[in-house]
Amino acid sequence: MNIILLPESEQNQSRWFIREQRQLTHIYGHLNAKVGDTLKVGIRNGARYIAEIIAMNTTEIEIKVLEKVSLPEKCPITLVLALPRPKVLRRLIMDSVTLGVEKIILLHSFRVDKSYWQSPFLKQLDDYVTLGLEQAGDTYAPEIQLYQRFKPFVEDVLPELIQQKDWAYVAHPYIENKLPKNIASEQGIIIVGPEGGFIPYEIDLLIKNGCQAIQLGNRILRTETAVSYLLGRLSAY
Amino acid sequence: MNIILLPESEQNQSRWFIREQRQLTHIYGHLNAKVGDTLKVGIRNGARYIAEIIAMNTTEIEIKVLEKVSLPEKCPITLVLALPRPKVLRRLIMDSVTLGVEKIILLHSFRVDKSYWQSPFLKQLDDYVTLGLEQAGDTYAPEIQLYQRFKPFVEDVLPELIQQKDWAYVAHPYIENKLPKNIASEQGIIIVGPEGGFIPYEIDLLIKNGCQAIQLGNRILRTETAVSYLLGRLSAY
Repeated sequence: MNIILLPESEQNQSRWFIREQRQLTHIYGHLNAKVGDTLKVGIRNGARYIAEIIAMNTTEIEIKVLEKVSLPEKCPITLVLALPRPKVLRRLIMDSVTLGVEKIILLHSFRVDKSYWQSPFLKQLDDYVTLGLEQAGDTYAPEIQLYQRFKPFVEDVLPELIQQKDWAYVAHPYIENKLPKNIASEQGIIIVGPEGGFIPYEIDLLIKNGCQAIQLGNRILRTETAVSYLLGRLSAY
Repeated sequence: MNIILLPESEQNQSRWFIREQRQLTHIYGHLNAKVGDTLKVGIRNGARYIAEIIAMNTTEIEIKVLEKVSLPEKCPITLVLALPRPKVLRRLIMDSVTLGVEKIILLHSFRVDKSYWQSPFLKQLDDYVTLGLEQAGDTYAPEIQLYQRFKPFVEDVLPELIQQKDWAYVAHPYIENKLPKNIASEQGIIIVGPEGGFIPYEIDLLIKNGCQAIQLGNRILRTETAVSYLLGRLSAY
């Protein structure tokens, strides 16, 4: 936890308190903080501060802002992911948020098990986002959208998204074109398929609607590895 | 498992058999393969082939090579990692191998818990390498070295490694310099510290011995995220 995130409502309070049990446990148990120590604190979807602990007990910690500190840069990339296995979803969301993507879209695909859409993990997306923000020290959550139908998304939604960006790449292991080096713009869309990849029909439809299919050097990567790798390749952070 | 790896000894046999239980389980249980089906097969530290199943029973599967296929490109990067928590080690080795790094060095550092060096996980490095190769469809294992003393490695070993490369970057969140974009050469060394980062003394010693300290856009990344991200930034695959 590299930042203590406070609810937006706290913004308007004259005195600020940390009351969330998870945060208290971190501050007491992990940081062993005491009165007078400083903490990195952020208002959800707001500013980031260095704050000083001015009072603490087991149920709440009162802090006083010392100074405002700039937020980490966001990465102007929209990430479109075929809905991954529930156990992978947590890491994928957390890592993407940590790396600062501005928008995440979870999409159905032929090789996505329909049961994934019923997974209780999908109800916990906000928690995964929080973990990612806390890791990065960021306060702004990316927008997350879910599309349970592939074709309508690719034909009706994706083209508009692409118009607002400079490129859209779909990573596909069985294609000739390699991802170009030294892409000038960071404004783009990265699309990553399910385990086993998109089916040819899906790749064709993505290409027909404005995506370039590229391979990552004929190594087959796990989704979670591919996403961090691609964000490294395509963002300047 | 995107390739069936056979021991080097198999190379010299006139007939090839798959006998490893893990592989048999994958072929029967996951692929539901039958006689006449083809498999991606590789000889450890050797060539990669498309092979046909010509006979199978519960204890062994006999295959016949149909054609040789080229191996995935390696990534000419040496990865130096402060020894991570045991539970992170598996993923870190597996991902690095999947991404094709040529060499991995595990290093002690002030913030590395000494107990990590006694972890049973360290005895399983070969298994993690195998998982990484099977994921990537690769056959060549990277060299892995362990250094339990920081200073002697940085002063006596690292400078020679750097001489053979074009750059050596140590990722450090609390530094001004950003990682440059568009680095021409892929021949380099990436150094990633422990949770909590290297201590100032360690950073100074690394810089004094030829490393450039760079930050990744003041987002604090987990080691496993940082490694895939950096390999994306610095390799062209």
